[in-house]
Formats: sequence, structure tokens, C-alpha cells
Amino acid sequence: MKKVRVTFYPEGERVEARRGATLLEIAKEGGIFIASICGGDGICGRCRVIIKGGEVEAAPTTLLTREEIQRGYALACQTKALGEVEVLIPPETRAEGAQILIDEDAQRFRALYAVSEEQAFFRHDPLVKKLYLELPRPTLQDNLADQERLFREIRRYLNVPLMQMGLKVLQSLPEVVRRSDWKVTATLGRRGGTTELIQVEPGDRAGAGRNFGLAVDVGTSTVVAHLVDLATSQTIDAEACYNSQLPFGEEVTRRIIYAEREGLKPLNEAIVSDINNLISALVSRNRVELHDVTTLVCAGNTTMLHLLLGLDPSHLRKSPYIPTATTPPPVRAAEVGIKINPRGLLYTMPNIGSWVGGDITAGILATGLYQMEGLTMFIDIGTNGEIVLGNR
Amino acid sequence: MKKVRVTFYPEGERVEARRGATLLEIAKEGGIFIASICGGDGICGRCRVIIKGGEVEAAPTTLLTREEIQRGYALACQTKALGEVEVLIPPETRAEGAQILIDEDAQRFRALYAVSEEQAFFRHDPLVKKLYLELPRPTLQDNLADQERLFREIRRYLNVPLMQMGLKVLQSLPEVVRRSDWKVTATLGRRGGTTELIQVEPGDRAGAGRNFGLAVDVGTSTVVAHLVDLATSQTIDAEACYNSQLPFGEEVTRRIIYAEREGLKPLNEAIVSDINNLISALVSRNRVELHDVTTLVCAGNTTMLHLLLGLDPSHLRKSPYIPTATTPPPVRAAEVGIKINPRGLLYTMPNIGSWVGGDITAGILATGLYQMEGLTMFIDIGTNGEIVLGNR
Repeated sequence: MKKVRVTFYPEGERVEARRGATLLEIAKEGGIFIASICGGDGICGRCRVIIKGGEVEAAPTTLLTREEIQRGYALACQTKALGEVEVLIPPETRAEGAQILIDEDAQRFRALYAVSEEQAFFRHDPLVKKLYLELPRPTLQDNLADQERLFREIRRYLNVPLMQMGLKVLQSLPEVVRRSDWKVTATLGRRGGTTELIQVEPGDRAGAGRNFGLAVDVGTSTVVAHLVDLATSQTIDAEACYNSQLPFGEEVTRRIIYAEREGLKPLNEAIVSDINNLISALVSRNRVELHDVTTLVCAGNTTMLHLLLGLDPSHLRKSPYIPTATTPPPVRAAEVGIKINPRGLLYTMPNIGSWVGGDITAGILATGLYQMEGLTMFIDIGTNGEIVLGNR
Repeated sequence: MKKVRVTFYPEGERVEARRGATLLEIAKEGGIFIASICGGDGICGRCRVIIKGGEVEAAPTTLLTREEIQRGYALACQTKALGEVEVLIPPETRAEGAQILIDEDAQRFRALYAVSEEQAFFRHDPLVKKLYLELPRPTLQDNLADQERLFREIRRYLNVPLMQMGLKVLQSLPEVVRRSDWKVTATLGRRGGTTELIQVEPGDRAGAGRNFGLAVDVGTSTVVAHLVDLATSQTIDAEACYNSQLPFGEEVTRRIIYAEREGLKPLNEAIVSDINNLISALVSRNRVELHDVTTLVCAGNTTMLHLLLGLDPSHLRKSPYIPTATTPPPVRAAEVGIKINPRGLLYTMPNIGSWVGGDITAGILATGLYQMEGLTMFIDIGTNGEIVLGNR
């Protein structure tokens, strides 16, 4: 396979690619942002670039004026690189707004903490809890097994009739309880009606600053993550970025079509990598150990949550518009490639339907609309918009 | 590291090993059976072998007569190979009885089928069930998601309020239901109070000959496996073998001590490999697809079940005699290395205590002792013995 090299200005980044690939594809491969709504079909005209030199082959388009073409303009999605090519991405096509948005969003969300603390009408009941336990040492009279001893102690504090424990945790249990002189911290996660003993650690790890969760808004355009101390319910910090699925299509339907053609893997990897980057920034800035991040709750439209979980979204856009799942189960975050505690849980907010997603569920919950006496309207103005009208 | 080669007669098997290893260790490495109760401590005197030639270094022992030593006898566990050695394993030290036992046991267990069919006072309610479902196709009026559509249909037949599904099964769901025109077989396993949707297959796989389980008696000396058709509760075939942990010590305590010194991995691998061999023999003889073997229920003493699950048994033998778990959760058989359907479940019978195991639980259940009016005695004569006295 013959290779070409394309240099993208103003940054001067060089990307090697297969000869005959489009400039949009090559930019995507190199992680370089070029605006595109139609996902590469030559319809939207957003991916305008300027060819500074090199051999290219461009399909004819009515979206550029003759004058523009003479000045070197081309649609990145309709232009194939045949040799060493130099491309300038003009300001309107660049993701420069992105960095600004990230900073502004982060500022804006940081400014919200005080408010959310005051407005806390939620009962503090996180998905994953840590519980410090001092187990009575076994004797000939009280010779319960390690597992049953731990369960008995947990049930003194919490009403958890059904408890599960993975084999790996069970295998480590005898050593952990004895090494810590029977003083351990149990991490308990809720999974579809049962409680899973996610991990057992020596000593006390249940206080503030020892158990963190992330609330992530997986938007079609932007992704925003809040870091929350699960012992206190306090939001510590927030971070935002553009959704890296943007080059696959700015609009939800385009991304579904892309997934149908090319598989959902690239879209899944893009959003997983965005979330991992946000987590990485949040934990390093706040000196949080990744091991202490035990849960991740994501809200987003039905398509975004499908792509995040690696669920086929293709039936969402075709009558009768059927999701794979409206209430996906809590899964281990690691199964999806999210890097928090390896045994931590990822919960996606339940979707209402194919085109009314878990972001709306989250909005109804967060605004308290479902508790209000009078008819209230909730409007989500996103890449796509939804309106909810209702009361208690 | 210098190597030596030891040839074991009468079979003439050659084993390469590290210079200075004992003949017992070398035999074990080569999978050759040499009797041993003490597990290599030079106490029991069972591992008698005859040195036919080569350079060895033997520790003095009072367990052999002067005459025996002159005739070449040595204790395999006290004799190190220093060069090319030829060893004869005399009949009393060999596992020749093993093959005979296997055949006799298999015959004996086969003869029991008719009886167990008549005595079926158990309600037919296997741990893993298959259910054939013809789902209504989605319409604009009935636009439930794939997962919720499947759950709704299952709940028409079974009372399963809590249902879980792994991410991988969920990911495969849209394709499976559509490829099979909404006619699918759901495999449902019980896991600690909840029901797990283990797999979804296209078409009808719920009839006789499509869902198999194994009932395995994990004895200290012998391992016996029964193949059961879970659609009919009928036992199809049985197979038995010696427990390959024997070279690590004939007696339970010796094996615990071995695990403390060398780790439990070799003991775990030995029993897992025995069970896999039995399964392999049973499925090939009965032309059963491994994919259709969905569950494995094991009974055994507490130590055997610990070693099978890879749970530390060392506290079982020291006061106050604490197991890691008396009621281990159902785990995925693959987690333990058991080769049935990769998503199939392994359930170990609950133990009563450290020295009264899940084999006794199974015995009380199988004999119906717990339902009897009069005081009844149940005696398990195994490598270790237990007696249960009780009634309803």
C-alpha cells in the first residue's frame, strides 16, 4: 500500500496515510479536528481547507465558488491525497473554539458548586458506598467463615438482603482481613437490585476524600465531567471538552450512519477516550487516587449512551425506532475501557425512548420537575432539543 | 541450571528436571503417580521406589530395612537425582489400582441411573434453565427496546423480578433477535438471589439434549462426574478418576500444608484438570456440544471446595478453624478454568463448617434425611468420615 504524507497547518502536524484517502479521513486519523456536519458526504460544506501544495484529486462541488477554488479552497472530505500534501485549515474550519469552550465551560461549572450544594434536595445515597468495619475476631464460639463474618457486619449497618462477591475479591479476603487485624473498608455497589461487594481494603478508607464518583454529561457536541466526593456529596471540580466523535458527523443521525457503515468501534473509542482524558485531568489536578474513583454516572441522549456502551445504535434511526436497551444495567467501567478503579461501576441514566435519552431523565431528576405542583416545562437546548411538560 | 533425566519404569517414561530435585517431585512434574500420604516429608514411607541405576543422593531413613536398601529401595521424596537416573516404581507404589477403580466406579454409577430416576423426590428446577421465546416484533405501538422486550417475554413464563445481563450479551442482542426473526432461546442462571441472562441464542435450543449440567463429587481420593440433561433431569452418563492432588498428600491436612508452603495453585490446577478431563470424556462419549453444558454443581469437603475455587484453605486447619467462605457464590466456571460453555456457572454446595463440607450438605439433601420423621443416621465413609444424625 502506497503511503502519502500530509502536513496540516497552522500547527504543522504531519500525518502518514494511505494514498487516495481523503484529507478529512487523514485528519481524523491524526487526531486533527476539521469541522464536518455531514460526516464526509460532501453535503454540508463545513470542511473547507486550503491546499498549499502537493498532488490532490478533488471531486467537483457546488459548495465552493470558482474564486475560492482558484484560491486553493477544497472540501477535505472530497479531496484525496495522492502525494506529499500541505493543507491549511482556515479558522472557520478549525476547532479553536474548542479550547475556549472548554475553559469557559469549566469556569461556568466551577461557579455552580455553591448553588448545587444549597439546592441539595437529593438524599445522600451514592451508587457506590464505602463502609469501615471492625470485625470481631473469630473464636471457637464465633467461628463464622470470613465471607459470612463480613456479610454479618455489613448487615448491621445497611439493609442489604442480597449480597454478591466476585471470586477474585473472595480469594483475596482471608489475607486482607488478617493483615489489617480485621479492620477493613468494604466498597458496596448497587447492581440491578443486588449489592455487590466490589472490593475489601485494609484499614479505614471510608472518610471524605477516599471515595469519588464522576457525573458525566455525554453531549453530542461537548462532554462535561464533574468529580464528586461520594462521602460528602460535594462536587470538587469539573472539566469539559468537545466530543471527539465530531469528525464522524456533527449530528446524531450522521454518527449512526457512520457506525452502520464502519462499525461503532471508532465512535465508541472516541467517547471513551474523551471521558478518560477528562478523568485524568480531574484526578491529577485534585490529587485524587484513581483507585478511589469507584463509580461513573453518565447522562446523554440514547445514541450517545449506546455508543458509549458499545451497543448497536442502527435501529434507533429506522422505524419503529428501537433501542438495544433503555435501561442498560450497571457494568464494570473497565469493560467499556473507562479508567477508574478496575472494579468500579459505570451506570448510564435510563433512557425514556429512542430520541429522548438519559440526559432528559437526569434533567427531570435534577430540576425536581417530577416533584412540582404546577405544570412545569423543562427545555434541553442541545445539538438536538427536547421539551418536557409535566408535574408531580 | 543443570538438568538431569530420570526414566521411570515399568512404563519407561522419561522426565527432565532440575539437578537436585527429589524423585517424587520429578515424578509429579512428569505426571507420573507415586503413592504418598505425607506429601513428601519422609514420614509415611509410601513412596518406595527401586533405584536401577544412576547417581542419586538419599537422606537416611528408618522406614526402609537394611535389606531393602541393599536391594535398591529408596523413598522417592528423600532421594535427589544428580545425574541420569533409572527408577522402578514397584506395584505397591503405583497407581495401577486407579484405572481399575475408574472402570468399576463408572460401571457402578451407571447402574444407579434407573434408581435415581425412580427416587426423584426433587422438584425439577435446575440452576440454569433454557427458555424458548417467540418475541412479538416491535411496532410503532409496541416500541420497547430489545432488552426490555426480552425481559417482558421471560416474565410471562417465570417469576424473575430481578434480572441481570452482562454487557457482552447485551451488545450481541440486536443482531441475534433480528437474525433469528425474534425466535430465541434465553439461558437463565440463578446467581445469589438474582437471575442472570447468561446467553441468548437464535432459534429453539431449549428441548431435551440442548442443556446439560454436571454433578461432580470432588472427593479427596476420587472425583466422580455425572452428566445430566437439564431439560429432563435425567442422568446420561458418569465418569470417575483419582484426584490428581494425591501426590501432594493423600490426606486433607497434608494438602493444606502443601498449599501453605508452595501456594495453592498446583493443587487448584490438579483438580481443575481432573474435572476438565472427566467433562471431556463425558461430552465426547455422549456427543454433547460443550456449548450446551451450562452448569456444574460440585460437592466436596470444605478443603476440596476451597482448592477448587482457589480459596486459601490454610486457616481451616488452625484454631479456631475458619473457612474463607461456607457458602461461596455461584461463579462463572471459566473463572476457575473449568471448560464448559464460557458463560456457564459453577456452583459449589454450601459447607456446614470447616470439617463438615458441601458433600455432607449434598448427602443430607440427596438421602432426604431432612424430610424423615424418625431419627436417621447418615454416614459418609470417605478418606475422612462424617456422621449426621437427625430428622425433619
